[in-house]
Amino acid sequence: MALWLEQASADFESRFAAFLTTKREVSEDVNTVVKAIIEDVRARGDAALADYSRKFDGLDFTVTPMRVSEAEIEAATAAVSSTVIDALKLAAERIERHHARQLPKDDIYEDAIGVGLGSRWTAIDAVGLYVPGGTASYPSSVLMNAVPAKVAGVPRVVMVVPASGGAINPTVLAAAKIAGVNEIYRIGGAQAVAALAYGTGSIVPVAKIVGPGNAYVAAAKRQVFGTVGIDMIAGPSEVLVIADKDNDPDWLAADLLAQAEHDRGAQSILITDDPALAKAVESAVERQLKLLSRSETAEASWRDFGALIIVKDLQDAVPLANRIAAEHLELAVAEPDALMAGIRNAGAIFVGRHTPEVIGDYVGGSNHVLPTARSARFSSGLSVLDFVKRTSILRLGPEQLRKLAPAAIALAESEGLDAHARSVAIRVNLAG
Amino acid sequence: MALWLEQASADFESRFAAFLTTKREVSEDVNTVVKAIIEDVRARGDAALADYSRKFDGLDFTVTPMRVSEAEIEAATAAVSSTVIDALKLAAERIERHHARQLPKDDIYEDAIGVGLGSRWTAIDAVGLYVPGGTASYPSSVLMNAVPAKVAGVPRVVMVVPASGGAINPTVLAAAKIAGVNEIYRIGGAQAVAALAYGTGSIVPVAKIVGPGNAYVAAAKRQVFGTVGIDMIAGPSEVLVIADKDNDPDWLAADLLAQAEHDRGAQSILITDDPALAKAVESAVERQLKLLSRSETAEASWRDFGALIIVKDLQDAVPLANRIAAEHLELAVAEPDALMAGIRNAGAIFVGRHTPEVIGDYVGGSNHVLPTARSARFSSGLSVLDFVKRTSILRLGPEQLRKLAPAAIALAESEGLDAHARSVAIRVNLAG
Repeated sequence: MALWLEQASADFESRFAAFLTTKREVSEDVNTVVKAIIEDVRARGDAALADYSRKFDGLDFTVTPMRVSEAEIEAATAAVSSTVIDALKLAAERIERHHARQLPKDDIYEDAIGVGLGSRWTAIDAVGLYVPGGTASYPSSVLMNAVPAKVAGVPRVVMVVPASGGAINPTVLAAAKIAGVNEIYRIGGAQAVAALAYGTGSIVPVAKIVGPGNAYVAAAKRQVFGTVGIDMIAGPSEVLVIADKDNDPDWLAADLLAQAEHDRGAQSILITDDPALAKAVESAVERQLKLLSRSETAEASWRDFGALIIVKDLQDAVPLANRIAAEHLELAVAEPDALMAGIRNAGAIFVGRHTPEVIGDYVGGSNHVLPTARSARFSSGLSVLDFVKRTSILRLGPEQLRKLAPAAIALAESEGLDAHARSVAIRVNLAG
Repeated sequence: MALWLEQASADFESRFAAFLTTKREVSEDVNTVVKAIIEDVRARGDAALADYSRKFDGLDFTVTPMRVSEAEIEAATAAVSSTVIDALKLAAERIERHHARQLPKDDIYEDAIGVGLGSRWTAIDAVGLYVPGGTASYPSSVLMNAVPAKVAGVPRVVMVVPASGGAINPTVLAAAKIAGVNEIYRIGGAQAVAALAYGTGSIVPVAKIVGPGNAYVAAAKRQVFGTVGIDMIAGPSEVLVIADKDNDPDWLAADLLAQAEHDRGAQSILITDDPALAKAVESAVERQLKLLSRSETAEASWRDFGALIIVKDLQDAVPLANRIAAEHLELAVAEPDALMAGIRNAGAIFVGRHTPEVIGDYVGGSNHVLPTARSARFSSGLSVLDFVKRTSILRLGPEQLRKLAPAAIALAESEGLDAHARSVAIRVNLAG
């Protein structure tokens, strides 16, 4: 069902290049609708939010308040099984420990001529976290977004989550509590993004908005970008598995399907030097597909975007992997380090046969928010760095200024900026 | 001429809040035009570039080749005065030394249960640098963008610069040579951005595009974002000067005008506890305005967006500064550290009376590409981090997988993701 490509065939390069540019997402043009919603929320604030929630979620805020109460969060948490609560806590602890290592250090120093230079890092004051409703409402994503924000020192993390009929997935509320989310509002869509960016009577605006969402949420994030910061716009997920012949085809099939079950636009790719393994994996995928509750989604993804690529030598997988720049890269080989050394473009690497990508989705400690759709060529997964910002510091005394003044004046004059030149010259008695 | 605000007046808060949200830019809607240009360059490649350059820059690539030759770069460099060349070299060296300290370190480690975790940083393969034409063609900006890319280890830095009639500012070419730019093309506008993002017959595509530009360039960068990475979209520049009474009004006036001369939308703000100083600065601005070759621009900026704010106590300037979140913040006070401790939102801080912001524009060593229009609340100036990306690494053996499997399976099941659960369970003999 999936695409079959062999490096040895004459048309490999052209077919691989075409495969790389396959579009996996229908981009709905919702910009006009979203623009109107944002303007409405800016103009009417809470009243607009109430109207949209009544219309889209069947919610009456005079009955079910917009803000989720402490009591509701407590009750939800109590309703989740202790097995799941313990798993969430283990995940949160591991995420926290790993992300604490990412906290950047200030660097304040004096150079050889006595100029003080520095980089000082501070946490963003307030961050909004968008959590989708329905089946895409993942507690693990709440942890992956909120825990790094808290590790960064963000004092105020505000979560928004649409609640059709008022109900919010209790595990999502439990995860928010464990992660230390400060405020939770029962709103979603472009209107929730607008409320976070511009504020309303009851919601104080944030400085940055993170988290996944549908086409409306993505468009709203793009539109408010500049007024607030945003994280990456996530596309459909993908996994690339590089495997030698000594693998259990069932293990690899399960990994490919774990990606495919996310979304019809997800992509699962196997690269191997063993055609027999590829055939066996293909059969295992067919078998396991029947066992999945989301088999329809997984089957569509595998049929439309799945691929089995046969290379002559496993080392040939490296340049292909760098061009694919996969969100997730599994190295299911005996000597993963030899391949890993050559990998430049990948969101995350899962090393060896005993590291299924799914561990990284939940409890590995690393972040599961990773660059999709080849964007690992230029961007990174979510980290503490996304929740801090750097202020650069410069400090000169009269002596340092005298030393650097002539060069600064020369450059300012060459750029035709008189006031620039004067601002330096006047301090060292060189102004005209 | 500029706005005068006193903290002591009853309507201060409402007037300050209004001042904060003043729009300083006319946002031209050029999206439709830009979309057509990008599609044309994707479809027709070099032929489209040739047509646009003929139309907009009066250039014939069969006479003046699109790519700037080594000989032309050499000749341009030879034509620049040795004073300016030396100043560029000093600036480049200082920028390089400062930015080398920003190179992130890989962090590969094993946790308490033997799980291997890590962050590995690699340089982006290829970066495009947009340089505007005409009067906004600043050699210093070439250094500020290209040097950090080279420090990061980017092997291929490609510069594009529109050249009306074929001519490129020789100092820009000299700066590119000093910074180690690898390829230079005589193209500009949305078509240059499209060529960098998608490639043409003669230009190999890049993975990220940085650098300032007009409304067409900014719109094109937004549209290609996702296919390639982009830097921030720069808005008009601003400076906030916090000053005590013991300042020379002429120094401060020069600093305010150095910002104002950039752009009619630039903003210069003085906050002081001394109304007499504010009055003196205002007079000095009027006097110095007459001396500037760009007096018309500076006067418009100062009249429309300049402000003098009188606070009761200098410490009251700190919360105001955090709300303004200025691109540039000068602390022209006797005890700058006391104020600096409270500053959270600022692109760069210039400490003490002998650190005019202009030093940071050219030769301080820190970057002059900084967050504008209040975006210092959530973003940072350009740094080496903008030219690298992080791959996260996870490595489990059978023992670690057994330990983490139950929690991962519990979370996968709670999210209704069967194949996720199976991908872990099958490896620890727990699969159904």
